Amino acid sequence: MTITIIGLGLIGGSLALSLRQHGLARRLLGVEQSPAHARRALELGLVDALETDLPAAVRQADLIVVAVPMDALLTVLPAVLDTLTPPQVVIDVGSTKAALLAAVAGHPRRGRFVAVHPMAGTEHSGPDAAVAGLFEGKTAVICDTAASDADAVQLVERLLRSLAMRLIYLDAAAHDLHTAYVSHISHISSFALALTVLEKEKEEQRIFDLASGGFESTVRLAKSAPATWVPIFRQNRLNVLDVLDEHLHQLHKLRALLAGEDYEGLAGQIQAANHISKILP
Amino acid sequence: MTITIIGLGLIGGSLALSLRQHGLARRLLGVEQSPAHARRALELGLVDALETDLPAAVRQADLIVVAVPMDALLTVLPAVLDTLTPPQVVIDVGSTKAALLAAVAGHPRRGRFVAVHPMAGTEHSGPDAAVAGLFEGKTAVICDTAASDADAVQLVERLLRSLAMRLIYLDAAAHDLHTAYVSHISHISSFALALTVLEKEKEEQRIFDLASGGFESTVRLAKSAPATWVPIFRQNRLNVLDVLDEHLHQLHKLRALLAGEDYEGLAGQIQAANHISKILP
Repeated sequence: MTITIIGLGLIGGSLALSLRQHGLARRLLGVEQSPAHARRALELGLVDALETDLPAAVRQADLIVVAVPMDALLTVLPAVLDTLTPPQVVIDVGSTKAALLAAVAGHPRRGRFVAVHPMAGTEHSGPDAAVAGLFEGKTAVICDTAASDADAVQLVERLLRSLAMRLIYLDAAAHDLHTAYVSHISHISSFALALTVLEKEKEEQRIFDLASGGFESTVRLAKSAPATWVPIFRQNRLNVLDVLDEHLHQLHKLRALLAGEDYEGLAGQIQAANHISKILP
Repeated sequence: MTITIIGLGLIGGSLALSLRQHGLARRLLGVEQSPAHARRALELGLVDALETDLPAAVRQADLIVVAVPMDALLTVLPAVLDTLTPPQVVIDVGSTKAALLAAVAGHPRRGRFVAVHPMAGTEHSGPDAAVAGLFEGKTAVICDTAASDADAVQLVERLLRSLAMRLIYLDAAAHDLHTAYVSHISHISSFALALTVLEKEKEEQRIFDLASGGFESTVRLAKSAPATWVPIFRQNRLNVLDVLDEHLHQLHKLRALLAGEDYEGLAGQIQAANHISKILP
């Protein structure tokens, strides 16, 4: 199978490495807008060749993966659908789904598109961030399969299972709601935590000296790129605002307990938070 | 050297393992209030023997380590100082310092006490959480050395360096301020994040299904025990409230940018947060 990957960053690049590692692609083609990233992707051997012409890149592939930021996805995915012909299949790997699926809802070749969100990533970006095995054992969410052709869904399921991913199925609205709760809010929280520490701790050497594993793990996501995350927050704005309001409420509640020296109440809240270890042991 | 460790939890137990691994203790004695933890500590070989009588445990040791929660520390440390005689030395391993140092400020044997905060830990607690190597390459803060006898400080410095720890020196007030910024707020944030997700996501299976590495790392600290953290927040209350207010301010700022659809402003804030990767590469 020839696979074209559009966007050779963290996710596209990692997918390229993983597909090759599992022997799932005979030939890998890449499309990458940034000349520096394109050159680097070739040096790293992420793909066999680069194509600058999108229709030409699409034409040669059995499967096209669109791995660009969520804002670019809204124009690149329709452009790919305009170009492809059955039995070619296209997937995205984006973090929000409702706006994207609305953007291609009426497309005559909508059936060739399967909406995929591999729940894997790191705080790094660009081709140098690509790692084989990023997806192993992770969850892939497939959305709104009823709108995709059965053979396209089967091809994608087979591929994702070959990468040792666990598949779950959600409609786009549910996907965006649940990922706001479980993924997007973590990033907001981490960005705010980094800003907090940078604001309060004027001696940067102190941050370095005193940063323990706990601090590093909560602030790690704050290294994530705005080019990735602003479009995600934008497209999932209402869900993110909703869960952010709940998060602010919880923080204000903890603050009130501490300010009021209600240490039993504070212990009760921490005990309630500890329940997360039953869900994520 | 015979070392008595009072409190055989995560920190005390890990210290026992590390001291033995580095050949720093000829004999390790333990004092542990919980019968279950005491039994487990012996089974795990954390210490050679247990003592139930505190004065007897202190009497046999060259060095006494008090590794109990911060609230218990306020009574156990003075009790140890009441019992020991020079050249015996006692250290704590607590996460806050001002209240503790005030509690022993007038003690006739204050000089035998060295205040130590090893900036290392995990979200787990109890003797089963003990791991050798927990402290390797981590920072140990030593506080208010001028109030300790020079020979006591030297002994402790030698010991911590033997565990491959980096030493830094702060007065108690500065220690409590900086750890509020760099450590305590991370825990508050993580507890609130867990409470947020548990409140919004009623389907626990969804949390398990969708939890990515990013979510797991930000919510990991929320598994930490209230018995450890409530006394820390209590003793560092004013600093924690101060940094928590800044954190709330940063979250409200991000919320306002997203609510007002100011995506350039949001990108600017994320870029500012990204600066943390220059400090913690």
